[in-house]
Amino acid sequence: MADLSRVKALLFDVFGSVVDWRGSLIRDLTAYGHAIGVKADWPDLIDDWRAAYQPSMERVRSGARPWAKLDALHRESLDRLIADKDIKGLDEGARRHINRGWHRLDPWPDAVEGLTRLKRRFIVGTLSNGNLALLANMAKRAGLPWDVILSAELVRAYKPLPESYLGAAALLDLAPDEVMMCAAHNGDLAAARAQGLRTAFWPRPSEYGPRQSPQDLAASSDWDVVAGDMIDLAARLGC
Amino acid sequence: MADLSRVKALLFDVFGSVVDWRGSLIRDLTAYGHAIGVKADWPDLIDDWRAAYQPSMERVRSGARPWAKLDALHRESLDRLIADKDIKGLDEGARRHINRGWHRLDPWPDAVEGLTRLKRRFIVGTLSNGNLALLANMAKRAGLPWDVILSAELVRAYKPLPESYLGAAALLDLAPDEVMMCAAHNGDLAAARAQGLRTAFWPRPSEYGPRQSPQDLAASSDWDVVAGDMIDLAARLGC
Repeated sequence: MADLSRVKALLFDVFGSVVDWRGSLIRDLTAYGHAIGVKADWPDLIDDWRAAYQPSMERVRSGARPWAKLDALHRESLDRLIADKDIKGLDEGARRHINRGWHRLDPWPDAVEGLTRLKRRFIVGTLSNGNLALLANMAKRAGLPWDVILSAELVRAYKPLPESYLGAAALLDLAPDEVMMCAAHNGDLAAARAQGLRTAFWPRPSEYGPRQSPQDLAASSDWDVVAGDMIDLAARLGC
Repeated sequence: MADLSRVKALLFDVFGSVVDWRGSLIRDLTAYGHAIGVKADWPDLIDDWRAAYQPSMERVRSGARPWAKLDALHRESLDRLIADKDIKGLDEGARRHINRGWHRLDPWPDAVEGLTRLKRRFIVGTLSNGNLALLANMAKRAGLPWDVILSAELVRAYKPLPESYLGAAALLDLAPDEVMMCAAHNGDLAAARAQGLRTAFWPRPSEYGPRQSPQDLAASSDWDVVAGDMIDLAARLGC
């Protein structure tokens, strides 16, 4: 392991790395659909909704459209998918509730314990493409004990743009190598390392369910820490 | 009391309202001066330093100078005062340490218990002119259990500019009347109320020591809640 003695803050990717977006949304929306009497293939909707995530941010990253926060991008994708799939019975209130499903995601079983241990020694924060309200509401409900909630929204640059990582370090008044990006996604870590941040990886092999691609099943590079999960990450960092 | 059922987030002024900046800095810098063998009238320096706070922000608010975060404004004022008072023996490292004294402030005795209780029912956050790193380091050291750290820095508008309050509510995706500004300063609350926020006051009569002005010894208006301290605020809000 590299010398990590300078690291003061651990910044976590959230969707997939800390919370199980797919399992949470399937549970949440299946129950909601029953409650309001709307029939839909919810897993299919959810998987297609997530598939729209990167393309929707790419239009912002590329400058093809002005800044829009993730709640707004999620809503646009949702409306389009509801139309494409011809799902009936979802009025404005229902769509708002479904869109806020991203605020109600459950953590993976090791996340709260891992963060609680890591928090003893490090500043623990988010660095997510989720907007600040989404991350704050999620943390409150799930008991995620963040010291600080940082978001692409605060620097108006979606990961993996360099400004997202450098802007987060600057807000903490830390040099890039005093910050460790922590994620279950190799691409996020590669972009963070390119800006001088330290890196930690653990796999979430069931994140995407049947659509899981092999690219994030294991570390693709010699990240500073490679752990089994977030509790193991705490152990490897001496917490 | 007004109907406060819509309030979801309590945003706290920090310097003076939650932490005792004057007592903390006197303790911290007196001990530091002894340790490094530098003689100075620390309470006098600290009181003059705080007196420079509003004028330094006013140059930013007025547009006379571009955005600068509070750590930078504090440092400029400190350097000027050290020169004016002819204090000898403070090199760059010492000045950095002294300037970071604002990151090491202690909470008033009721603050942590009050916030811990309020957090059960509300999102509790900062809305301070302190920069994010300052507030995050302070919270970590003092055990202030914020759900979210919001700062004038995030909207680049120092309180009491309207954008500081409206920008904070927007980041939380809340309407102004879903947010309660909580402070020991009537002026902060008046500016927040003017933008539609709810308001809560408690006095900190010893905040400024011998230079305490009478203007914040009691509520100057019918704020939505007037409490004795932050524990009493929790009780009055049913926490």
